[in-house]
Amino acid sequence: MSLKLDKFKEKWARISRLDQSIAVLGWDMETYMPEQGVKPRSEQLALLSELAHEWLTSEEMARSIEEAEQEVRDGDYFSEEVSMVRVARRTYDKRAKIPRDLIARFARMTAQANSIWIKARMNSDFRLFAPVLAELIELNREQAEYLGYKAHPYDALLDLFEPELTTAQVENLFGELKTQLIPLVREITGRKGSPDADFMNQKFSVAQQEAFGLLVLKDMFYDFSRGRQDRSAHPFTTSFTPYDVRITTRFTDDDLISALFSTIHEGGHALYDQGLPVDLVDTPLCQPISLGVHESQSRMWENIVGRSRGFWKHYLPILKTYFPGQFDSVNHEQFYRIINSVKPGFIRVESDELTYNLHIFIRFEIEKDIVAGSVRVDDIPELWNSKYREYLGITPPNDAQGCLQDIHWAHGSIGYFPTYTIGNLLSAQLYGKAIEDRPVITAEIEEGKFHTLLAWLRDKVHKHGSRYTFEELVNTITGGEVRVGPFISYLKDKFYDIYR
Amino acid sequence: MSLKLDKFKEKWARISRLDQSIAVLGWDMETYMPEQGVKPRSEQLALLSELAHEWLTSEEMARSIEEAEQEVRDGDYFSEEVSMVRVARRTYDKRAKIPRDLIARFARMTAQANSIWIKARMNSDFRLFAPVLAELIELNREQAEYLGYKAHPYDALLDLFEPELTTAQVENLFGELKTQLIPLVREITGRKGSPDADFMNQKFSVAQQEAFGLLVLKDMFYDFSRGRQDRSAHPFTTSFTPYDVRITTRFTDDDLISALFSTIHEGGHALYDQGLPVDLVDTPLCQPISLGVHESQSRMWENIVGRSRGFWKHYLPILKTYFPGQFDSVNHEQFYRIINSVKPGFIRVESDELTYNLHIFIRFEIEKDIVAGSVRVDDIPELWNSKYREYLGITPPNDAQGCLQDIHWAHGSIGYFPTYTIGNLLSAQLYGKAIEDRPVITAEIEEGKFHTLLAWLRDKVHKHGSRYTFEELVNTITGGEVRVGPFISYLKDKFYDIYR
Repeated sequence: MSLKLDKFKEKWARISRLDQSIAVLGWDMETYMPEQGVKPRSEQLALLSELAHEWLTSEEMARSIEEAEQEVRDGDYFSEEVSMVRVARRTYDKRAKIPRDLIARFARMTAQANSIWIKARMNSDFRLFAPVLAELIELNREQAEYLGYKAHPYDALLDLFEPELTTAQVENLFGELKTQLIPLVREITGRKGSPDADFMNQKFSVAQQEAFGLLVLKDMFYDFSRGRQDRSAHPFTTSFTPYDVRITTRFTDDDLISALFSTIHEGGHALYDQGLPVDLVDTPLCQPISLGVHESQSRMWENIVGRSRGFWKHYLPILKTYFPGQFDSVNHEQFYRIINSVKPGFIRVESDELTYNLHIFIRFEIEKDIVAGSVRVDDIPELWNSKYREYLGITPPNDAQGCLQDIHWAHGSIGYFPTYTIGNLLSAQLYGKAIEDRPVITAEIEEGKFHTLLAWLRDKVHKHGSRYTFEELVNTITGGEVRVGPFISYLKDKFYDIYR
Repeated sequence: MSLKLDKFKEKWARISRLDQSIAVLGWDMETYMPEQGVKPRSEQLALLSELAHEWLTSEEMARSIEEAEQEVRDGDYFSEEVSMVRVARRTYDKRAKIPRDLIARFARMTAQANSIWIKARMNSDFRLFAPVLAELIELNREQAEYLGYKAHPYDALLDLFEPELTTAQVENLFGELKTQLIPLVREITGRKGSPDADFMNQKFSVAQQEAFGLLVLKDMFYDFSRGRQDRSAHPFTTSFTPYDVRITTRFTDDDLISALFSTIHEGGHALYDQGLPVDLVDTPLCQPISLGVHESQSRMWENIVGRSRGFWKHYLPILKTYFPGQFDSVNHEQFYRIINSVKPGFIRVESDELTYNLHIFIRFEIEKDIVAGSVRVDDIPELWNSKYREYLGITPPNDAQGCLQDIHWAHGSIGYFPTYTIGNLLSAQLYGKAIEDRPVITAEIEEGKFHTLLAWLRDKVHKHGSRYTFEELVNTITGGEVRVGPFISYLKDKFYDIYR
């Protein structure tokens, strides 16, 4: 008998379906919605978001969670039933602190911010975006106050993307990473390692790029009967349920590499979402643990797998057939080195594995100070550029290649970026464990076969949904906390080899 | 002071935005949703539909409408305020009769029926579709009982698509039309009029078909900043608000004509939706009057404009540039006659203006008897084919070209088809009035210019939203009721000329 739990699940399912509907409207907004659809879309999203919030934070839901807690109180901590009530409780406690009208204002503002950001980026003019960004930051600050925090208002925002993660923890992890990474980047960029990349300066058919990307996605077991790939201004993955997980990409005919690795990256995200427990659809457990865990999946596929020597042993000959005549002179080793060239650049999503995290440090520092109020929105472009000089030794030529490059702020997401680096750390730690458990993975990758790796990820990560917290997951799989060590070792092994 | 009315409008806006969200989910389902997305989508739609119904039929809404009625009781009948409350009252009275769970069951069933219909049609096997159709008809019967009717349960269903229209009225109109149309079809098909159509038996580039269709849509002033065209199994138009009105089409490389006129047809629908009063978005008035009025717009653009001699005077030379070498030998008169060949065929949407309504008579008769219970679902294929023999003298070779060709039943729509013929009648009646008011329209069409016609339609029809009923609109514009005469005159003028 689990009457109370069933009642709770029914209530939760309604919220879950509403959230799925919101996600469909969001996907449409970023892929196909016509220009003038923005205003009504923002009203639709405001309504549905407000409603989802109202249902989640209602007296009725509070009572239902309490009753379910009572009913399952003797169950195992990690049992399905106890876990789903625990996750619901955490979600409730957090969301109940935020007033309903803030949710609606947030939804309305972000729906409109999206198209303003696109325009600002196209015109490379931060001033177009600044007023709406200022409002979004104000909303975030307001949200942080409602949510509460111990040390820093940024803690409250971080917690929305990576539950329990604090600013101090990020500072510690990033501090340790920095002390190892910055000398490493200096050392590597001082060496000669990259061959001449002239062959990349060609035009590559977008249709062929797309076809090749689809081939790789299929090999990765991305299930197209449960998903699709479209185009958008900024690549993303969105999941309504494991039955409908969509990715987007963008192509240009002068950059084969960017679209390709972005496709594999989003494919990695999508595999996680497609692997969530379908028998728990519409319960609190059928969702990813956190953005950090999500990013560990996408970065593992993109970098550890996709940028490996083994991967291209299989795929370079195939790539050559997709672009006849364009890679004739290129051998496997050259190609491997090219896609792993370490070179400070302006664009985060196009950066190599070594410098990538420097981009994140910059965003984290700016966000933290903006939220604390010690930096003003208008100062962002200058601050951004000065930090690029400091960390990467380069100055962005304009805002489009500078502080307007990412969509996150337009989504109203402040506190999201650190999860990328957390994901990088975790990806190396998990992958290390995966090949320890299943050494055959490395050999399979050389044949374009990924079933053992995927099966391991499904078994260890995906199928549990949000039953574990980030810490519990990492501890269960690797015995301990997320660490800087495995990532640094991975980088050193890889790049000392390339840049001998 | 209009406190009560403002309160009412606020309440109504929420329902309206929810309906818009439902429409987005529906559009996605028929254009881009991956195969396995069906089941969760049906749950999302069931939830939102049930909710919209709950809000609309709530005690609170009933009270709000009553209070608004009180507040505006001294206003003019056709004033904005009085009209919007009147339309809300009609909608409320109708919907309040339907129990909430029926709405949810209906939404769930139709979401699933759509993909079953697509599969059945692809396999040309009615038996695959029969069980779900039987359930949908049962739901419709149940609905009719809740809604109530005087003479025939089909009355209640007709009323959902064409308010106030009764089975008896349809029988009268169709009876009169039949007595004039059937002899006319016989007479015309007995004559020689159509030239050799060999030049249509070519392959036409789908990309060029699409490009030409987009050109025509632009000329018609379909606003792409407020809409877009996609592909779907069955062409349709969907409108979220006048700011986002989308059409779909389908192309095959062996049928230029079908896709082209379907594009113009949906364009006609879309112009109506884009022309609805934007200052009344989210009120009961920002919607079309009925499907009959909607169809009068699409059929006017498709047939009276799109299949006219004048239209092709302008567009044939352009068409030739889109398909170089493929129409070299064709002159204007030949082309005009080809696109107006009268020939009984299996497919409604591909049929000529003369035989089109015979397809509707068949569907109307079958639907009426199915709802009355005198015909069983399993008997449909045979009955369908025998009626095609009777009315059109041909036997469909399979179900795909027979009773599975239309999407309407899969949408759960029974009582929809008669509105097509009503729309045909009205299109001729309205167009006659338009050229009486603005004789320049005919000459403009010969130059591919449609602004005077569109301005007339905007002024007489579109901008009023649902302020008038069907009868009020027809009476206001043409002084009288919808009549068979103008349509028959139009057909005789056109086809006696072609089939001299």
